Amino acid sequence: MAERAIVTLEETLTALVEGKKYTTLRDILVTMNASDIAALFEEMPEAKLPLLFRLLPKELAAETFVEMEPEAQELLIQGFSDNELKDVVDELYVDDAVDIVEEMPANVVKRILKQADPEMRKMINEILKYPDDSAGSIMTTEYVSRRPVMTAEEAIKRIRRTGVDKETIYTCYVTDNNRKLIGMISIRTLLLSEDDDVLEEIMESNVISVNTLEDQESVAQMFAKYNFVALPVVDQENRLVGIVTVDDAIDVMQEEATEDFEKLAGMTPSDKPYLRTGVLETWKSRIPWLLVLMLSATLTSMVITGFETSLAAYSALIAFIPMLTGTGGNSGTQASVAVIRGLSLGEVEFTDTVQVIWKEIRVAVMCGVTLAACNFVKLILVDRMLFHNQAVTIPVAAVICLTMVCTVICAKVAGCVLPLLAERIHLDPAVMASPFISTVVDVMTLVIYFQVARVILHI
Amino acid sequence: MAERAIVTLEETLTALVEGKKYTTLRDILVTMNASDIAALFEEMPEAKLPLLFRLLPKELAAETFVEMEPEAQELLIQGFSDNELKDVVDELYVDDAVDIVEEMPANVVKRILKQADPEMRKMINEILKYPDDSAGSIMTTEYVSRRPVMTAEEAIKRIRRTGVDKETIYTCYVTDNNRKLIGMISIRTLLLSEDDDVLEEIMESNVISVNTLEDQESVAQMFAKYNFVALPVVDQENRLVGIVTVDDAIDVMQEEATEDFEKLAGMTPSDKPYLRTGVLETWKSRIPWLLVLMLSATLTSMVITGFETSLAAYSALIAFIPMLTGTGGNSGTQASVAVIRGLSLGEVEFTDTVQVIWKEIRVAVMCGVTLAACNFVKLILVDRMLFHNQAVTIPVAAVICLTMVCTVICAKVAGCVLPLLAERIHLDPAVMASPFISTVVDVMTLVIYFQVARVILHI
Repeated sequence: MAERAIVTLEETLTALVEGKKYTTLRDILVTMNASDIAALFEEMPEAKLPLLFRLLPKELAAETFVEMEPEAQELLIQGFSDNELKDVVDELYVDDAVDIVEEMPANVVKRILKQADPEMRKMINEILKYPDDSAGSIMTTEYVSRRPVMTAEEAIKRIRRTGVDKETIYTCYVTDNNRKLIGMISIRTLLLSEDDDVLEEIMESNVISVNTLEDQESVAQMFAKYNFVALPVVDQENRLVGIVTVDDAIDVMQEEATEDFEKLAGMTPSDKPYLRTGVLETWKSRIPWLLVLMLSATLTSMVITGFETSLAAYSALIAFIPMLTGTGGNSGTQASVAVIRGLSLGEVEFTDTVQVIWKEIRVAVMCGVTLAACNFVKLILVDRMLFHNQAVTIPVAAVICLTMVCTVICAKVAGCVLPLLAERIHLDPAVMASPFISTVVDVMTLVIYFQVARVILHI
Repeated sequence: MAERAIVTLEETLTALVEGKKYTTLRDILVTMNASDIAALFEEMPEAKLPLLFRLLPKELAAETFVEMEPEAQELLIQGFSDNELKDVVDELYVDDAVDIVEEMPANVVKRILKQADPEMRKMINEILKYPDDSAGSIMTTEYVSRRPVMTAEEAIKRIRRTGVDKETIYTCYVTDNNRKLIGMISIRTLLLSEDDDVLEEIMESNVISVNTLEDQESVAQMFAKYNFVALPVVDQENRLVGIVTVDDAIDVMQEEATEDFEKLAGMTPSDKPYLRTGVLETWKSRIPWLLVLMLSATLTSMVITGFETSLAAYSALIAFIPMLTGTGGNSGTQASVAVIRGLSLGEVEFTDTVQVIWKEIRVAVMCGVTLAACNFVKLILVDRMLFHNQAVTIPVAAVICLTMVCTVICAKVAGCVLPLLAERIHLDPAVMASPFISTVVDVMTLVIYFQVARVILHI
């Protein structure tokens, strides 16, 4: 519904822009949400962008700016006077400012930092020091903190006076004289307390916090686990240095899930939306794995070539190669995706390896036997009786079905062991996934197929 | 770090349970977070569970109860006296109560509803009416709402008096006499306003809300887009009936991402963690697609059988079948996963089909040509010169490489079109994904391969 509303609005606004009805335009824009304005602006001709942007009141302008794509942000900054840039930068939360700085070319970054006030510049530089994808890199340094001896009434008063610049006022952190984190209290508890309650007595003193260097994925997992609105970030000495808010945790969750999807499909992760990624860039992210997997398929060719003369004698076996490798690949992918998702949600760990393998073996035996039985019936009823393919004899069908059982078992075990091993040696489990497992499974399937054929058909 | 702390704690607590040191146990438990207590309890012997649970103070007991797995919840309820059950139910938020009711067998549900007070029972029954996976089914009916004529001071006072039972007090909704949603105001704005400001004047009157029947996935997407802490849910007449809070939106996001992963790997989605799903259940979720895909591979067998005599003459071609189908499958999966993820993040829509296809064709030509060129060099240098495989002649290599280019193009187009078509006819794009596309691509690859071979090798 929201989407449909924007489309009609887009046409209305385009008409207003063309008719130069700027007052009406402004009246409409101020009623809208920053995300929606940003989406709308992205659809407008680039030349109109600075003009449209200048219609927005200061605060809404900054909020909209944050929601825009880096290309549009750069375009706007290039057109800003120093004063206009300062107005926007002043309104930004420091974590949003850092996100923007990270995307901009050096000359734009220089201009932004020049316009930021010294306090802001210091905070931006502080956050930029932390490694990519760490808790420090996604935190904000604008939070509410109080001393333990303050009363609830004083704390609320102080929040009412200074809260306007903080990214969230919903959680208030309590620190001692050395900035060490000793407690936290939600604005909810504060409001529901008596005026003269002392923070020390009403605060939650078992605070769950993360270290600045903690991986952003586990930070996001903690939000999912504990239902937080914000999570404090501390340094090695347990000094409070910032907070991560739930909206940033949600962004991290989506990013990480998208990355896992891309890795599963053998693509280098990209943080740009699909339609905004150029053809060359898409090619670059896709070609490496395609090349590696194509070249590693040399192994399957070699296995087949080694068996070529026997295959010439039993040519019926050839027709079932894609079915066997396909079923093996699918079985392995099921196991690997289940384990990879379990690992990234923290439901499975390396110490569970034996339990996982034992489970997969039992599932694999059941799946393998079911598939083999169905396939046997199909081979005899459809291929032999219906299509009169006399090459599909009972021994040939037996070879295919026995291979099926062995393949499914090997594929499921490989599918669950490879991601666990990857996790163990600190590689990314998702990278070891489907495409790579397919190649491993293809080779295994062919070797099993030809060995079983050799034994049963005496070739 | 949190994980490690629990493991040592587990041993300590086990020792304390065995030594019957209940006071110490209680002292430790009250310092902990409900999620961690629940995780710890799940590791304890079942027989000790009711005893451990009774050590917790009322509110913490209810919070812990919510975080436990349904099996443990059922076990506890079976052991509860009516009074104990009432204590827990009284402390629950209504959306958590609904989640529990949905998982329990009928006789347990009956007991729960009997112990709930009439107000709670009414709210639970209300929410249970909404379809699965709708906004109505995940909302809570415990929110703060006020009339537009109230002042900021009065509103804050009222929140301080009544807020303790509300799931979130961070957003206050403003409704008219007919319960229609006319505005919202965050507790932040309230606190930062003057005491005598009237809500009507300081509230945000363009409220973004969702209908009770909206799909939960799009509700979660709205949280990601607008950075909300809560989102109001309205009925067909725009009357406020509930709110969805960000913690529930996060759960939905993770659930939906996991479902997509499972569907991509050809599994029926399950909402249980991997290690808690039984072997039979896992088999049931995996076998349908394996069977369908195995049987649909009959097509590939038929294509190969139809070409069997020609293959006997040019047996070198057989060895490259897995490489070609594999590369085709990988290329198709890349395109389909990129499009599926784009669709579920709202970055791609059906109306973008032409743009998507045009992009994929260009990427496919570039990928196809790169792969074919590398493969040609590899065939001549490695297979022919290094391994002296004289069957790999220049014409044979040409057949393989030309097939490669055509296959990659067809695979990428099929990979992007199938999910878009699925979306169009309201099927799940993720279900159309990798495994199904692999089968389609396998057949296409073989048909192309044999046609190209026929033309170039005159067989």
